[in-house]
Amino acid sequence: MDGCPPGIPLDAGFLQQWLDKRRPGRSRHTTQRQEADAVRILSGVHEGQTTGTPIQLMIENTDQRSKDYGDIAETFRPGHADITYHLKYGHRDPRGGGRSSARETAARVAAGGVARAALRELVPGLDIRGYMTRMGEMEIDRARFDWDEIGRNDFWMPDAAALPGWEAYLQRIRKDRNSVGAEVEVVARGVPPGLGAPVYGKLDADLAAAAMSINAVKGVEIGEGMAAARLTGTANADEIFMGENGPEFFSNHAGGILGGISTGQEIVLRFAVKPTSSILTPRRSIKVDGSPTEVVTRGRHDPCVGIRAVPVGEAMVACVLLDHYLLHRGQVGVGPRGRIG
Amino acid sequence: MDGCPPGIPLDAGFLQQWLDKRRPGRSRHTTQRQEADAVRILSGVHEGQTTGTPIQLMIENTDQRSKDYGDIAETFRPGHADITYHLKYGHRDPRGGGRSSARETAARVAAGGVARAALRELVPGLDIRGYMTRMGEMEIDRARFDWDEIGRNDFWMPDAAALPGWEAYLQRIRKDRNSVGAEVEVVARGVPPGLGAPVYGKLDADLAAAAMSINAVKGVEIGEGMAAARLTGTANADEIFMGENGPEFFSNHAGGILGGISTGQEIVLRFAVKPTSSILTPRRSIKVDGSPTEVVTRGRHDPCVGIRAVPVGEAMVACVLLDHYLLHRGQVGVGPRGRIG
Amino acid sequence: MDGCPPGIPLDAGFLQQWLDKRRPGRSRHTTQRQEADAVRILSGVHEGQTTGTPIQLMIENTDQRSKDYGDIAETFRPGHADITYHLKYGHRDPRGGGRSSARETAARVAAGGVARAALRELVPGLDIRGYMTRMGEMEIDRARFDWDEIGRNDFWMPDAAALPGWEAYLQRIRKDRNSVGAEVEVVARGVPPGLGAPVYGKLDADLAAAAMSINAVKGVEIGEGMAAARLTGTANADEIFMGENGPEFFSNHAGGILGGISTGQEIVLRFAVKPTSSILTPRRSIKVDGSPTEVVTRGRHDPCVGIRAVPVGEAMVACVLLDHYLLHRGQVGVGPRGRIG
Amino acid sequence: MDGCPPGIPLDAGFLQQWLDKRRPGRSRHTTQRQEADAVRILSGVHEGQTTGTPIQLMIENTDQRSKDYGDIAETFRPGHADITYHLKYGHRDPRGGGRSSARETAARVAAGGVARAALRELVPGLDIRGYMTRMGEMEIDRARFDWDEIGRNDFWMPDAAALPGWEAYLQRIRKDRNSVGAEVEVVARGVPPGLGAPVYGKLDADLAAAAMSINAVKGVEIGEGMAAARLTGTANADEIFMGENGPEFFSNHAGGILGGISTGQEIVLRFAVKPTSSILTPRRSIKVDGSPTEVVTRGRHDPCVGIRAVPVGEAMVACVLLDHYLLHRGQVGVGPRGRIG
Repeated sequence: MDGCPPGIPLDAGFLQQWLDKRRPGRSRHTTQRQEADAVRILSGVHEGQTTGTPIQLMIENTDQRSKDYGDIAETFRPGHADITYHLKYGHRDPRGGGRSSARETAARVAAGGVARAALRELVPGLDIRGYMTRMGEMEIDRARFDWDEIGRNDFWMPDAAALPGWEAYLQRIRKDRNSVGAEVEVVARGVPPGLGAPVYGKLDADLAAAAMSINAVKGVEIGEGMAAARLTGTANADEIFMGENGPEFFSNHAGGILGGISTGQEIVLRFAVKPTSSILTPRRSIKVDGSPTEVVTRGRHDPCVGIRAVPVGEAMVACVLLDHYLLHRGQVGVGPRGRIG
Repeated sequence: MDGCPPGIPLDAGFLQQWLDKRRPGRSRHTTQRQEADAVRILSGVHEGQTTGTPIQLMIENTDQRSKDYGDIAETFRPGHADITYHLKYGHRDPRGGGRSSARETAARVAAGGVARAALRELVPGLDIRGYMTRMGEMEIDRARFDWDEIGRNDFWMPDAAALPGWEAYLQRIRKDRNSVGAEVEVVARGVPPGLGAPVYGKLDADLAAAAMSINAVKGVEIGEGMAAARLTGTANADEIFMGENGPEFFSNHAGGILGGISTGQEIVLRFAVKPTSSILTPRRSIKVDGSPTEVVTRGRHDPCVGIRAVPVGEAMVACVLLDHYLLHRGQVGVGPRGRIG
Repeated sequence: MDGCPPGIPLDAGFLQQWLDKRRPGRSRHTTQRQEADAVRILSGVHEGQTTGTPIQLMIENTDQRSKDYGDIAETFRPGHADITYHLKYGHRDPRGGGRSSARETAARVAAGGVARAALRELVPGLDIRGYMTRMGEMEIDRARFDWDEIGRNDFWMPDAAALPGWEAYLQRIRKDRNSVGAEVEVVARGVPPGLGAPVYGKLDADLAAAAMSINAVKGVEIGEGMAAARLTGTANADEIFMGENGPEFFSNHAGGILGGISTGQEIVLRFAVKPTSSILTPRRSIKVDGSPTEVVTRGRHDPCVGIRAVPVGEAMVACVLLDHYLLHRGQVGVGPRGRIG
Repeated sequence: MDGCPPGIPLDAGFLQQWLDKRRPGRSRHTTQRQEADAVRILSGVHEGQTTGTPIQLMIENTDQRSKDYGDIAETFRPGHADITYHLKYGHRDPRGGGRSSARETAARVAAGGVARAALRELVPGLDIRGYMTRMGEMEIDRARFDWDEIGRNDFWMPDAAALPGWEAYLQRIRKDRNSVGAEVEVVARGVPPGLGAPVYGKLDADLAAAAMSINAVKGVEIGEGMAAARLTGTANADEIFMGENGPEFFSNHAGGILGGISTGQEIVLRFAVKPTSSILTPRRSIKVDGSPTEVVTRGRHDPCVGIRAVPVGEAMVACVLLDHYLLHRGQVGVGPRGRIG
């Protein structure tokens, strides 16, 4: 990571807490592969503080069983990047899925930890929280939304009453040798107004790219998201009033971003994670030689990779917000420039 | 635009056809502002062909009535970028909304025309088509999808039977001094497999950023999009078989992209456009001095800006696909590298 | 130009003063082509201040005589980019040399004017001055260096006593139907310490690229430049002492940059401009069909294009320093972070 | 490294040969620090071939004696980046000089090895060779230039007759507890015409940035370089004739680049490396607290770091040429586009 401000307190332990949220084998609902995901800081930190020079982090694989992937090398898993890598590059590294493995997201979480460390110093009060809002047919009831519940269950899910249903559902998915998709929401509170840009580097465009770049993500929403297509202008308008500390809004259909720039409201990002394509149920496919085959992916895969996507989504939001905070400070300086009232 | 291949036939007339699709005042369903949107090519084309050097295009404003924006300068339209520009920069250019105006998308359409001209030469058979799938409560019936219908109506909408309903609905929205959102889908057929990259510059991430960067877009989907959260792995797997010219798929939940790289199937991008915030119905807001006010936006605004977003979406897809075609040709060379069968 | 801070006072007149320094036909020593080089601000400035959104400037050609370039289209001028454009792109726009014309540098000077306007606000006391130090066999005597003289003569040259020799020399070059190279030095005083980066985006690397990207430049030096190869470590060490306002140096062999980061001393950049290749003396060459020919370039060309490179070099330094000031402010904040003493 | 073509044969041994050229302790003329500089390939290569996905290389430090740097932490070495890092960041990692250490260039050489591996496949016949042309007062006689001699001596120096003088000179420099600068030239033969771009990403601008970004480099030249300022247009014109395989030139003042684009001639890049600032002779300086001190740098430093800059310069040229080859293939396709004759 290049460009991190100097003088930011940082150690491996701070990063590890976020990696532990994403770590496989953390609960019976995720892959049983055992990876410590221990992160080391190789450069850019001295005496417990960032130096301002590039930061290199390293997370080593410890439980990679190449034999698990033996068959995979010659066949293409439906819904997996196997085939596009083959078509593009002519050959690929089947060990652990190479760059298309969900394992790649460990690096994102580590980087997000650095971004969080910097934001903690630069924007006190900024808080980034992710949680699941849907897993297949299971959906949270927003009337029962409880921030404190999120950290208590294995799904990062805010609806305690829904929990037994979710657990049973995922248990059944696993027994069915199947997998299932998920919807994740990330909320950032305390984001200063003014982050973003009007044409290139819009904050929402960068968030959309960051979320869509996460493995298996197929849709991204800000605020109302796709539902904005159903609304009228009167319903969608976030009316404005003068609060004690500046302008406030009666609603937040915009999800905290207007014209590519943050309003100061909560930023609400939502994304959908498709079900992992590595399943134990046979699917029709072909081999490299073109002959037909059926693919059953053994290995140890997540029945719902969306669970572990929660800390990944948080990390991507942290990285984008830090980037935009620094860009804004560069162009405009510290503090809101435009006064109202 | 920099980096366009040399020797591509190009003239202003070719670009104008796409601009005419986006042009205001084209039908009674769009703003009655009259803008010719005439594009001139200032550089980068010689004797009817691109030279390979930077291309500059110019579209001049002709019907800008600054007085229409008189009140806007001192108040903030709810749902509009007025307030974020003010907070970020301290002042703003109210004429025509400046960079946050939908007018900015004319430049995107012109650039998309250049990309189409290049793609026509480089990837014969590639076809990019956009259309509306929803406008507020109105939705197309995919069972009646007719490609030929798209160009026949004012909505770029593929369902002829739905047309009268859409017209009446938008008429009512307009009479109610309201506006409404829309969902637009863009399909690219004939995209070669292999475009994209595994980590940085994923094709889907770049498409997401391109779509989200369009004014008023709040959600982006590839293939199943947000609905992927509801699917199981067995349902979502696009099973593979060997076709005459290579691998084919029994379905396209992926929307033509796996692991950030094109599969060769249709690329399906969908995005939601929020209702324009410039409406004739009063909304509560504040002035620059913090005092409360009600905002009624006169001027001549679109009741459904999503209609004109169709050619904009097509243009963004064209730009991203050309970029990725050239990047792919740079890294890997011409033609698919990996043979199957 | 994107990313300029908001609230910077700016009008076309401020930009024009720098363009007038580069304008052709300004003295008998430059091309007699008459170009007003009048710059218009098309966007990004409102009520005399930058808005923070992209700034577009336009300088139109008025005295382009295409017929002057009739022969050029079929032949290759030795030492000119004609042949590389042809080899790369297959065809080229011969009018005015297209992108390889020295005319392209007008845009650089205009952009440099915007950078100067921003620096004037952000870094009061920063001063960027360029001047010629050599023209062919003519060289300044640094013992006679006079800052005030620079603006008084047609060469931006600081040695009044050398002036008659320079004038006679260039007159002879012109009569000989020849042209001649030049060395230009740009000094930036009042640059705060800390601008730059340790690996990517080093200040000296960016300055080198900026200078080398100017048409006809073949060499770039910082401080001692190529002469550093002749020095020993004891001679080259810029010894340090504590001044009233912080560390100072007994010498400036480094040219104000150490490890890619500004020291706070004067930044000294030097570059060599080759003689223009468009001369009236015949040179052996070939035509597009491969047949041999002799090339005599009519048209109205500069006998020493290095004269007009002085404001171009200043402009490039201004752009790079503004970029790095904003980058530094983004990463580290305002003011020097590291105190000494 | 991202973007390397797939299917390129690559192993650590191929990279190691270039690292061995830069390795410290290789001869009595370089630092006696012992570093194996053993490179490992962590990703991006499978079964002996690049996969097309990002390549990560790792070179670990083995002989870092932190105690050698004990005093350095509190004082500033004149001519060293110590002080600029301190001023910019407020603190720094003194171990091994951190990012400003010549050790950083090992990564460049490793990356250059990957670029060479790709160029070997893509541009057969391309050859990149570097050598010293000057070391302090010692200079090669170009009349005695012998390509075969370069690899035979410890200086990568092409003039066998000069060798004893160079050895004695450097011995004296070392005994004097001093260091000395150097001039390095890198020649690339077999570069296809057409690499580069007309405005942004000029080949010469990118080479200049690449060379200037090498630690301790203070000047960069292409072809005639700074001497171009002394030439007339008639002397500088590289006249053209039709050779058997296309256009050829009677001379190469341009150093193989015109208008930012390669001509097909040899590319000639030259750069000056300043004497290392870490010397055993005391220099006046200050401590972090502002008090005066004298600095004597113990540790084990190169008397002429320019020797080891030869493989670094080669590596940077290889990286830039590969980048531009791929960019050109992306924009224009394979093979020269413009035919002559």
